[in-house]
Amino acid sequence: MCQLLGLNANTPTDLVFSFTGFAHRAVEHRDGFGIAFFEGAGLRLFVDHQSAAESPVAAMIRHYPIRSRHIVTHIRKATQGRVALENTHPFVRELWGRYWVFAHNGNLVDYHPKLHASFHPVGDTDSERAFCWLMQELAKNHARMPSIPDLTQTLAELAPQIARHGTFNFLLSQGEALWAHCTTQLHYVLRRHPFADAQLQDADLTVDFAEHTTPQDRVAVIVTEPLTTNETWVALAPGELAVFVDGDRLG
Amino acid sequence: MCQLLGLNANTPTDLVFSFTGFAHRAVEHRDGFGIAFFEGAGLRLFVDHQSAAESPVAAMIRHYPIRSRHIVTHIRKATQGRVALENTHPFVRELWGRYWVFAHNGNLVDYHPKLHASFHPVGDTDSERAFCWLMQELAKNHARMPSIPDLTQTLAELAPQIARHGTFNFLLSQGEALWAHCTTQLHYVLRRHPFADAQLQDADLTVDFAEHTTPQDRVAVIVTEPLTTNETWVALAPGELAVFVDGDRLG
Repeated sequence: MCQLLGLNANTPTDLVFSFTGFAHRAVEHRDGFGIAFFEGAGLRLFVDHQSAAESPVAAMIRHYPIRSRHIVTHIRKATQGRVALENTHPFVRELWGRYWVFAHNGNLVDYHPKLHASFHPVGDTDSERAFCWLMQELAKNHARMPSIPDLTQTLAELAPQIARHGTFNFLLSQGEALWAHCTTQLHYVLRRHPFADAQLQDADLTVDFAEHTTPQDRVAVIVTEPLTTNETWVALAPGELAVFVDGDRLG
Repeated sequence: MCQLLGLNANTPTDLVFSFTGFAHRAVEHRDGFGIAFFEGAGLRLFVDHQSAAESPVAAMIRHYPIRSRHIVTHIRKATQGRVALENTHPFVRELWGRYWVFAHNGNLVDYHPKLHASFHPVGDTDSERAFCWLMQELAKNHARMPSIPDLTQTLAELAPQIARHGTFNFLLSQGEALWAHCTTQLHYVLRRHPFADAQLQDADLTVDFAEHTTPQDRVAVIVTEPLTTNETWVALAPGELAVFVDGDRLG
């Protein structure tokens, strides 16, 4: 099972939730899932905290033609916080006139940051607290949207302060770049024309790549566990922060 | 056609989008629609800027079992702003650890408020600018979530400053109260057990009331145009701000 999946591409890419694995695990009744994807500056968020076997949202998005350059998905096993809609990743906030999307895999122990500014959690997860603190500190460090390298530098200073409290694998996107931070487990692959396989998949989701790609097409896929065995998946190191733009890794 | 519909109830109420009227108007290709509803503190937002005849979101939510105590819906005829996902109502922001939902009917001329704090529009509509300014000023007036009467008083001071720029019928909710501000056209009905009809409907949506209600059940429905002829719909006066809690009007 893939807890986190992020996609950053220079051309809209199809994603399908199959939920096959979900259905098998439905006896647990504790999985939640969420998918956020940008359409231009606009954002769609489909989340549910019910078992995918019973969720009407799951039934809907199985047939929804998701097609985006910026996707963040999360499959949740509740560690902290009640199983409730407001605790389901990804979380969304607006900053500098852009929507920001955040999904976290891990567990932060005794993490109660000082949230004295404009971002407060609606639910009661460690993850949403971490997201609010990141947004607060980004806003404090930059008066308006800075460059991607500047944002990356600030995030690289902030992330370790949270990671000190536990496992902090996360994906973050504002519809232009995708940041991936690893403390235990996160892998990425950079795909270029011609793609080795038309699909990437596990039991829960399928990423469909155009059958006829152009030489310019590039897609970065970031996941908890590699989805193929015949490609070069790069494991992020503990404490590493990677940033992806236009389907490529920066820096 | 009903541009705005808000619902505030003391018991979860069913809402169905039929989109029949939408389908008839599909030739215009300029309608967008949006529905936001709370499930506890959590919020679901389904919006689309495509014609409902073609929208996969419309197809989905026709079958989605919406059941909520706090609903804000909007059917859009674009007046300002491109027809784009980021310009589609309702808009959502977080303030004081709650999600706030806003939908506007009308047109604000030359409205460019000073947005110097934590709320900035993602799209380019007058409506989202007005919402951001309301959030900014609420945050300025209150350090944390005040009482409903205090919030109402602040909103009553803020709304006229925006309404000066044009037509400003709006619905606003944070999942506890629903505020309705009228400059031209907004009607409400308070329904109590036993409900006169099991349904309220127009060409685009149907509100389904439980067939067997309890004597405690109360629902307030606020719309642009009355949905029935055999009930007492109250027209809000120009400049009037009404607030609804637990299916009843306050004050």
